Amino acid sequence: MNNTYGEITTIMIEQNINTWNSYINHNFVQQLADGTLQDLQFLKYLKQDYIFLIHFARAWALATVKAENLEEMTFTSSIMNSLIEDEMELHRKICAREGISKIELENTIEEPENLAYTRYVLEMGFSGDFLDLIIALSPCVIGYGIIGNKLKKVAKSDKYIEWINTYSSKDYQNLCISVGKFIDDSVVQRLGKNYQATGKWDRLLWNFHKATKLETKFWDMGLSV
Amino acid sequence: MNNTYGEITTIMIEQNINTWNSYINHNFVQQLADGTLQDLQFLKYLKQDYIFLIHFARAWALATVKAENLEEMTFTSSIMNSLIEDEMELHRKICAREGISKIELENTIEEPENLAYTRYVLEMGFSGDFLDLIIALSPCVIGYGIIGNKLKKVAKSDKYIEWINTYSSKDYQNLCISVGKFIDDSVVQRLGKNYQATGKWDRLLWNFHKATKLETKFWDMGLSV
Amino acid sequence: MNNTYGEITTIMIEQNINTWNSYINHNFVQQLADGTLQDLQFLKYLKQDYIFLIHFARAWALATVKAENLEEMTFTSSIMNSLIEDEMELHRKICAREGISKIELENTIEEPENLAYTRYVLEMGFSGDFLDLIIALSPCVIGYGIIGNKLKKVAKSDKYIEWINTYSSKDYQNLCISVGKFIDDSVVQRLGKNYQATGKWDRLLWNFHKATKLETKFWDMGLSV
Amino acid sequence: MNNTYGEITTIMIEQNINTWNSYINHNFVQQLADGTLQDLQFLKYLKQDYIFLIHFARAWALATVKAENLEEMTFTSSIMNSLIEDEMELHRKICAREGISKIELENTIEEPENLAYTRYVLEMGFSGDFLDLIIALSPCVIGYGIIGNKLKKVAKSDKYIEWINTYSSKDYQNLCISVGKFIDDSVVQRLGKNYQATGKWDRLLWNFHKATKLETKFWDMGLSV
Repeated sequence: MNNTYGEITTIMIEQNINTWNSYINHNFVQQLADGTLQDLQFLKYLKQDYIFLIHFARAWALATVKAENLEEMTFTSSIMNSLIEDEMELHRKICAREGISKIELENTIEEPENLAYTRYVLEMGFSGDFLDLIIALSPCVIGYGIIGNKLKKVAKSDKYIEWINTYSSKDYQNLCISVGKFIDDSVVQRLGKNYQATGKWDRLLWNFHKATKLETKFWDMGLSV
Repeated sequence: MNNTYGEITTIMIEQNINTWNSYINHNFVQQLADGTLQDLQFLKYLKQDYIFLIHFARAWALATVKAENLEEMTFTSSIMNSLIEDEMELHRKICAREGISKIELENTIEEPENLAYTRYVLEMGFSGDFLDLIIALSPCVIGYGIIGNKLKKVAKSDKYIEWINTYSSKDYQNLCISVGKFIDDSVVQRLGKNYQATGKWDRLLWNFHKATKLETKFWDMGLSV
Repeated sequence: MNNTYGEITTIMIEQNINTWNSYINHNFVQQLADGTLQDLQFLKYLKQDYIFLIHFARAWALATVKAENLEEMTFTSSIMNSLIEDEMELHRKICAREGISKIELENTIEEPENLAYTRYVLEMGFSGDFLDLIIALSPCVIGYGIIGNKLKKVAKSDKYIEWINTYSSKDYQNLCISVGKFIDDSVVQRLGKNYQATGKWDRLLWNFHKATKLETKFWDMGLSV
Repeated sequence: MNNTYGEITTIMIEQNINTWNSYINHNFVQQLADGTLQDLQFLKYLKQDYIFLIHFARAWALATVKAENLEEMTFTSSIMNSLIEDEMELHRKICAREGISKIELENTIEEPENLAYTRYVLEMGFSGDFLDLIIALSPCVIGYGIIGNKLKKVAKSDKYIEWINTYSSKDYQNLCISVGKFIDDSVVQRLGKNYQATGKWDRLLWNFHKATKLETKFWDMGLSV
């Protein structure tokens, strides 16, 4: 496993390696790669993911609220903006082609697995502090970067190439690198170099584990049409 | 349907009648009544419900934070206290008999359906206001009162009589009546007598519907051992 | 009084007219207009206002978290971005000329009047809902628009012309108009056309009054060097 | 300085010794001791403090929301209950004697110094985590314990003996001791034994400093009738 997205997410992935692998090697991902994922499954996923991204963007806005200086505010709000403007644009574009309007997209009824994940992240953000929140956000951001990169190399079909191109793109990869570095800086500033010796670290690890599991359930949901 | 727990929960139940009936007439409930629910299922439910109640108590504490006067603070904190002291005592007592300690109970790993529900309620409470929060809390409180009352009359077995007695008890029924009245007062004070003409009401209705669905999923989880 | 920034802020101003006039006709404002405000006072104000804007931007980010749809999220986050990028740029530019660096600006120790105001707004946002928050934010936004417009016409000195130009600019005036309209829409959507008949409205009015008073105290603080 | 209320508050007091002494040796406190505080000043203080305690109780309820286990929930909610039931009872009793009813007390208009303090604590609690919140709460709790103890020994007049007895009472002193120990445990559990080596500690120190300053401003307000 060679994760280039910072020290801390690397450690967290290693310490949750089975859970992590279930997420990034999920059947849904395999079927994106080989083009066997059905249209209905992909569309269901896209529509759910659109709602997911709305709440995910709210969670990044919450990170701006909880930031401790202007630099952290600027960084987190730039992520939020790119979610709303770039990442959700992919969904709008593909769905538009399928005759699904922006309004229809936004009115998608959330599946329980979708709701569980976003409310978990937001509640963690409200109840915890800045670190609790950005760690809860990280498996999604970083995982999609790893998956995008991998599928770009191994995909046997062009069927889902737009999706693959989005997450393997230079822009998205740079976003992952900057998020990884941002997490490293934020953790060390607050918990010090020996961050692994704190109880807070155990909580962050558990949080990363939990969010990764919820991410995996999200793929499950995508397959169950 | 004759609900004695206030005007507003009565209206909300009527406007969500199918969803509501799926909740209060769930197989889990039927099997509690006729004693056919398996021990393993009941214990799983009890352990999950213990964790549920911890987060539910946190949500009532959040209602105290969001209260707008001392009276609302006193009422909501009394509910929180009775959850921690009385309702959770039932779980501790039954589980102790089965050799499950208080610590073991508290360390139960949350099932996704459990997490989804409590995080939904807490996040609604953090993002919304006092009304959003108490409405999200209401299907659980009132529903258990209705179920307890009904099972007291129709139960064909004594197997789960402690559970039935807890929720049909004078104490619990009075709590439901006071919560129903509290909701009526809180809504009218904030939205006026014509509360049903506001957009806020639509949101509250949707919220009640969502929480009822999550409650139903919780029963599903209890059955799936 | 002819306020062009929406129906609701107009009503709120009228119902708080004395408090409002103490704010927009404050000595600090008069002295900005006639150029008699001392450099030390203006710089103290600017530095305090820089910290104020950091927390004010956090509060707008909180509005994005509390928004109920993508449109509200986009609008509130655009305000936050313009605060950080445009409005704070004025402060950085003027302070740089006076030899005060960006870092020094950000490390300004908050005066109590400054802290009182921003924490009031943020706490109102956390404890209340979206409406509570945007109303708490409004006296600052709209008031500066009214003051900017007025000083543009009556200023007898060019000493503080950059400040006056910023808040009388087409950009800032348009921002005020869009915020006024946004408030009108948000209130009517949630409370209906008869919003003034609700208890919530009374609370919003009180909130507007309180924020206006805190704004006035902020001017007081600026004068007390 | 011999503070018996735990290791961490002792260190924090030592590192803020001047600010701390300005708080506990404030003129208001001296005049309570020698009975020279005027009735009007004391009543103003009591009425403001009543509103203060409402928000302070809300902040302890928020600590219950942010607690990470049942033990922390039980402890923090017991503090909240004793605030509402015991500490505020002193105010109600004294004010009743002066012809000020409970309702009148609750409708006291907050002074800016009062609002600044409580909103600071609540906002710190919402934006930060459990530690941020309980540290923001601590100067008030512990400081009143120290002041109560000292005045019990040095008071030259019986005029304010009820107030002095409340805060020097066994009950209140035990509450302070338990809060001190609770803070020690909570910090060590989260930040480890080397907590002073973390950036989080610096933030907590700054937070303690800020809350102590706001407490001092509260005394100032009491004197200014």
